[in-house]
Amino acid sequence: MTRSISILGVTGSIGASTIEVVDELRRNGADIAVEAVTAGGNLSVLAEACRRLRPRFAAVADPAGLAAARAALSGLNVEVGAGPAALVEAAARPSDWVMSAIVGAAGLEPTMAAVRRGATVALANKECLVCAGPLFIQAAKAHGATLLPVDSEHNAIFQVLTHPERVERLTLTASGGPFRTASREAMAAATPDQACAHPRWSMGRKISVDSATLMNKGLELIEASYLFGFTEEKIDVLVHPESTIHSLVHYVDGSVLAQMATPDMRIPISYALAWPDRAAVSTARLDLAAMGKLTFEAPDGVRFPALGLCRTALRTGSAATTALSAANEVAVQAFLEGRIRFLDICRIVEEAMAALEAEAGFSAKSPSSFDQVRAVDQAARDAARRIAVNLAAA
Amino acid sequence: MTRSISILGVTGSIGASTIEVVDELRRNGADIAVEAVTAGGNLSVLAEACRRLRPRFAAVADPAGLAAARAALSGLNVEVGAGPAALVEAAARPSDWVMSAIVGAAGLEPTMAAVRRGATVALANKECLVCAGPLFIQAAKAHGATLLPVDSEHNAIFQVLTHPERVERLTLTASGGPFRTASREAMAAATPDQACAHPRWSMGRKISVDSATLMNKGLELIEASYLFGFTEEKIDVLVHPESTIHSLVHYVDGSVLAQMATPDMRIPISYALAWPDRAAVSTARLDLAAMGKLTFEAPDGVRFPALGLCRTALRTGSAATTALSAANEVAVQAFLEGRIRFLDICRIVEEAMAALEAEAGFSAKSPSSFDQVRAVDQAARDAARRIAVNLAAA
Repeated sequence: MTRSISILGVTGSIGASTIEVVDELRRNGADIAVEAVTAGGNLSVLAEACRRLRPRFAAVADPAGLAAARAALSGLNVEVGAGPAALVEAAARPSDWVMSAIVGAAGLEPTMAAVRRGATVALANKECLVCAGPLFIQAAKAHGATLLPVDSEHNAIFQVLTHPERVERLTLTASGGPFRTASREAMAAATPDQACAHPRWSMGRKISVDSATLMNKGLELIEASYLFGFTEEKIDVLVHPESTIHSLVHYVDGSVLAQMATPDMRIPISYALAWPDRAAVSTARLDLAAMGKLTFEAPDGVRFPALGLCRTALRTGSAATTALSAANEVAVQAFLEGRIRFLDICRIVEEAMAALEAEAGFSAKSPSSFDQVRAVDQAARDAARRIAVNLAAA
Repeated sequence: MTRSISILGVTGSIGASTIEVVDELRRNGADIAVEAVTAGGNLSVLAEACRRLRPRFAAVADPAGLAAARAALSGLNVEVGAGPAALVEAAARPSDWVMSAIVGAAGLEPTMAAVRRGATVALANKECLVCAGPLFIQAAKAHGATLLPVDSEHNAIFQVLTHPERVERLTLTASGGPFRTASREAMAAATPDQACAHPRWSMGRKISVDSATLMNKGLELIEASYLFGFTEEKIDVLVHPESTIHSLVHYVDGSVLAQMATPDMRIPISYALAWPDRAAVSTARLDLAAMGKLTFEAPDGVRFPALGLCRTALRTGSAATTALSAANEVAVQAFLEGRIRFLDICRIVEEAMAALEAEAGFSAKSPSSFDQVRAVDQAARDAARRIAVNLAAA
């Protein structure tokens, strides 16, 4: 395998797994040159990444961080940049393959820079699809970029999408999160630490809370809808606590194809990196006989209203999915800071959506530019903040 | 879809399912012309098949059955033949696609006729691979024939064989048969009717007994080894009583791809017929939430020695797999006729293999012609019959 790659968000959890995959493939003889990497502010992790990857260019997000970054990376023979334009430059520099793993809305501009030059983009950033799905997909098509999903569920679907024109339904599997079997009363009293105790995956706190509300699965449903081009009625969510079947594709002949694996992000990352081939990676192998069973249940729409909110937003249009994601971010932040209760998260999202609909009537609109996306995002954050303040005061 | 097809073995269970698939695809607008069909001796079922399929040519196995077949098919505007040469003619006549569903060794010659003209062959007959695997595969390659497995396990593997060069292992799933949880004592006393009570699939009595001994899975292991080109150590057997995951392919990156479906032979048949596309078929859809769970266990090699016998035969060579299948046929027949006990089946197979090895030392030989295959087959049947008679007398 010969690849020139760039890694946007090299110091995060996806970045760390990507480095591990690159290291192992290089040990196995792959010729992988790293053009560029980007980081938020963690300079010691960035320096270690640069020692292992030997990139030509490294960019940090903070425009004031140039001198510190240069100092941290001195002697590593790497050109250093800082600020939003440097992140975009990292993505725009020529490379075959770009890992888009910057967390949050900050990932949108750099990822778009990679898309605009027609790169193969391994997509781990959720906001590209959740906030700006139709625009992003349209841009990828227009510029001939290839999108390879890295999220384990979407990667699973992609792996078994042998006949895209013959798909009847998709099923996204969900672990069910820490409150799968909790009572509504227990959920009402849940603390941030309880919500962040995910049974299968070790993740950041924002995404852990999203997993506890099932909002994460709803956002994945939105991503899947835009990425694969299916309406929400054709995408099911199935609770599968063992997180072994990562998702399923149902075909018109009754065949259902599934990708399974022990939960390990190196698997989808290496799949995206080796695509259209596969490469040997030393992940733990699946042993179904040792597991004994896989279990499944329908999600409970009453205790987990997030799925319904996401379906409604998808039916409403892309302004609604942008707004939903923004409102959720504000609500989760308020919960993590102890200002609202767990069940308030979805309530805030729902009320923010209703307020925006009443104000702006966005059901008929789809943003036609990234500026419009940002405006919808901002309006949703403002609405969610107002509602959160009122709830906290109540 | 436009296809010209022939169906070898149209009156059996696979033939019946093939007719159902053809009927449904035709109703949905497919243009499927039937060139030829063949049958054993069931003339009323053959006549009904001809009424639905409108083939140009129909052949019956019995050379003395020409007049009766002509009478049964009169008015259907179908040319009629009888005897082995007519079966071969049915396969040799030009058509895009041939369903090879004649049961037993009788299917070998007609299937070879289709292979020799480079047809696409949907392979339901087991003996082509079990008895003559290497020769059969070699012939398919030499004549540019395409082999599409119809057996649900092999079809499942074929559906998810996205990267044949990157496979680490295959797993064949097995229902476990009617004696999965039975004691060895209960198995020792098992009657033919108990052995034929398969929990998931409705099948003929020979194959039902093979499912009860797990010999069926061992024969499938042999088929998979020849068909996909993997040695026996790379093929696992996993007991999965729900028969929902039809088999799995394990890749070098840790991904495991699976095909699932409700048990229905129309699914693999339609897959083979529509290949490389898929076609809509009204099979019962899989509902994992309603099922609740899928379970898995390692097979018990003590109660089910058939798997070990098949692995040993595969390691020994293709004469051994030919002999094993022949000896098993004799042993199962003796069991079904009440002459031996259930646990004697594998004992006879094992002793017949040992006797042949002592006599002919076949471990070093691979038949290089179909005549040699037949000679090994005959020697194994003779050995098995002798052993069965001795056991019955004991």
